Amino acid sequence: MEKAVILLSGGLDSATCLAIARSKGFQCYTLAFDYGQRHRCELDRAALVAEKLGSERHSVMTIDLRQWGGSALTDDSIEVPAANDRGEMPVTYVPARNMVFLSFAAAWGEILKARHIFIGVNSVDYSGYPDCRKSFIDSFRHTAELGTCACDEGWHWHIETPLQAMSKAEIIRTGVALGVDYSWTVSCYDPDPSGRACGVCDSCTLRKNGFAEAGVPDPTLYQER
Amino acid sequence: MEKAVILLSGGLDSATCLAIARSKGFQCYTLAFDYGQRHRCELDRAALVAEKLGSERHSVMTIDLRQWGGSALTDDSIEVPAANDRGEMPVTYVPARNMVFLSFAAAWGEILKARHIFIGVNSVDYSGYPDCRKSFIDSFRHTAELGTCACDEGWHWHIETPLQAMSKAEIIRTGVALGVDYSWTVSCYDPDPSGRACGVCDSCTLRKNGFAEAGVPDPTLYQER
Repeated sequence: MEKAVILLSGGLDSATCLAIARSKGFQCYTLAFDYGQRHRCELDRAALVAEKLGSERHSVMTIDLRQWGGSALTDDSIEVPAANDRGEMPVTYVPARNMVFLSFAAAWGEILKARHIFIGVNSVDYSGYPDCRKSFIDSFRHTAELGTCACDEGWHWHIETPLQAMSKAEIIRTGVALGVDYSWTVSCYDPDPSGRACGVCDSCTLRKNGFAEAGVPDPTLYQER
Repeated sequence: MEKAVILLSGGLDSATCLAIARSKGFQCYTLAFDYGQRHRCELDRAALVAEKLGSERHSVMTIDLRQWGGSALTDDSIEVPAANDRGEMPVTYVPARNMVFLSFAAAWGEILKARHIFIGVNSVDYSGYPDCRKSFIDSFRHTAELGTCACDEGWHWHIETPLQAMSKAEIIRTGVALGVDYSWTVSCYDPDPSGRACGVCDSCTLRKNGFAEAGVPDPTLYQER
């Protein structure tokens, strides 16, 4: 059974990614990051998703990105805005986040002898983050090949992005078919302490529209407004 | 004054790197990692070097690589060996370490608007680690370009590796000329609690030979054996 490292955020996309990896027969090692994110309840959701979908081992890496700030998700002085107009880089962008996350996944993968890394990036319904694009992922794979023992030992990294070309509705339909219960997940950038979603941020908007378009009842608990 | 992020380990190479960056007129932001390394006293040395050589701000990122083990530096069940025969990957290799470190440097650099990252990798006197090679550094730069706002905002990353082609003796002579006092630094993989070097590991051997070849008195405190 081949091993894979799955980046897990507690959100809808990465839960679907894990379900896809399991359906392909991988032994899955899930990795979540406590990076001081505003939406910390996603960490409990990530652990729940890992358990429900049969992760072999769930690891949480704590990294203090708050000491640098620079994003609405890691700096309380920057507010999470309502849905973005897609014109410029949103303040929810966390600099170089996926590069940091993928580097850790490669570090753990090298130790586990897992050659596959799953990440739920998506080019269709996304917020314009540069580190979600295919060109970045392809380049990362090449860099990981050179920066680990892969190059000397003659094996290869596979960065799996099964959601890359899917719409949010397609992702939801795929997950439902694989047994994902999306009430386990949280996507909101600014949930209340009990984990209820704001319903208006970029991430909530994409998620809400996705359920509507997929024709799947939205199991998300929203804050009353 | 242009800003730069300098990866600082507390060792000889990165101290020299910082001195070079300062001599080129950069405003320097130093970054060290507490990754559970066996040689933790290097963190105090990194802070000392940062202070002595005029770092603008010294940041320590704590990351728990011990939860995964896999290297003599992060796993107490693996012993640090005496100098390696250069034939195979030494057990002191920490998987994907420089990729993780550089990714954090890019994250901080993006927030600071620092476009230069200095890293003291070296192709001459090194232990055969894949993540010290020029091909990896070049590829990382390209990946960082794609995975951050650089690509959309039209600026470029510069990964500066001033030590890449220097011998250890040349590094030492360069640092001495720039005012580095190497008694501030520690290179040993397995120092005793007071910070005295073992004198026999790979890193000690390279350092010792470097001072001898440079004709510079070795200020290192060694354990009695």
